Amino acid sequence: MTVKVLTIRADVLGANKEKAKRNKDRLDKHRVLAINVMSSPGAGKTSLIMQTINRLMPKTRIAVIEGDIASRIDADKIHQQQGVPVIQVNIPGGCHLDANMIEVALNSLTLEEIDLLLIENVGNLVCPAEFDLGEHKKVMLLSAPEGDDKPYKYPLMFTEADVLLLNKIDLLPYTDFNITAFIQSVTGLNASVKIFQVSCKNGEGLELWYSWIHAEVKRLKDTAVRR
Amino acid sequence: MTVKVLTIRADVLGANKEKAKRNKDRLDKHRVLAINVMSSPGAGKTSLIMQTINRLMPKTRIAVIEGDIASRIDADKIHQQQGVPVIQVNIPGGCHLDANMIEVALNSLTLEEIDLLLIENVGNLVCPAEFDLGEHKKVMLLSAPEGDDKPYKYPLMFTEADVLLLNKIDLLPYTDFNITAFIQSVTGLNASVKIFQVSCKNGEGLELWYSWIHAEVKRLKDTAVRR
Repeated sequence: MTVKVLTIRADVLGANKEKAKRNKDRLDKHRVLAINVMSSPGAGKTSLIMQTINRLMPKTRIAVIEGDIASRIDADKIHQQQGVPVIQVNIPGGCHLDANMIEVALNSLTLEEIDLLLIENVGNLVCPAEFDLGEHKKVMLLSAPEGDDKPYKYPLMFTEADVLLLNKIDLLPYTDFNITAFIQSVTGLNASVKIFQVSCKNGEGLELWYSWIHAEVKRLKDTAVRR
Repeated sequence: MTVKVLTIRADVLGANKEKAKRNKDRLDKHRVLAINVMSSPGAGKTSLIMQTINRLMPKTRIAVIEGDIASRIDADKIHQQQGVPVIQVNIPGGCHLDANMIEVALNSLTLEEIDLLLIENVGNLVCPAEFDLGEHKKVMLLSAPEGDDKPYKYPLMFTEADVLLLNKIDLLPYTDFNITAFIQSVTGLNASVKIFQVSCKNGEGLELWYSWIHAEVKRLKDTAVRR
């Protein structure tokens, strides 16, 4: 399978929650763990996805939905890695993925052959947090150079995240990022969020992220089996 | 004057262009140069504004409109510098400033006492690019750690910008940012954009930015006088 490109307008009529529920049921039925990956532009979503593919494939069978306003450069980059199935969703004039787009993208995937679906949202720390896609987990990245004050200014994303990856920790020595203050403000908004400190550049800290994914993929399979 | 906080819902009914035109006329009448400062979260908007205040005040009389989804930490930080008048506009559930918000904010400023109005938009490389505020110039920052591929993925912002500040160049040695490729892709979208390479942290490259502001403030005064 090559990269498939879909161009979809935003679902302005709403009904997002209902469609998200339908996506979730469909993913559950096929035991596909779906992770919605969100962050500011350039915080490292694509790098995280590429590292994760490199580490977990082929044991974990991965597919990617790639959300962008324009271009397919990330989709092509990702597909070049081990031929992972990638659906490129382009959203001209949009600023986030919604459940309708995911529904359309799912139609182009063979769910029986996937364990893990990584959904790369549009680079935007605001709007994507408001739209459920039917994912099992919301994962956000913040890159160290963005600064430790971001939870105060973009609280919804930090509140919604199940996992927060503090990325580009290799740049920490060159910034005045205060990790203690940052973790304090994040957990003040969201006491149950899991925080991993990582560098997608040199791989530091990523083993904990991979273990978390493994556990979640397994949990979903086990739940499905018990039904 | 202390920091004034306004909480405003987005102007969903449109009429944005008309209101932007009205703001522009009002700013022209009072010879206030208005600059709309846009970027991803954490690219350095607040730092740029604070550096600019430090360098240009009191000769250039500056006021700031500070757009945020939540919090007033940037407004307070900025106001502490030389007591600059700051209007904090909070937009719960929003993702960009619009012309209506600026109109309301202008009502709280004494325009006769201002030469330069710096408008810090919400940290978002997508939505703010779509809304004219009535500003004279659109200025965007991209921070080097965000990566050189951003023009392909967020083309509208790069197309709309009059000035692009490539910020955090002090971090360039620790990234794989390709300046030549970046400038090529930016000018491919927008041949007339002015590009300044700066570090708001150590001040590198900012003198050209200050000179540009000086020239624009002067140009507006001269135009007004000639009328």
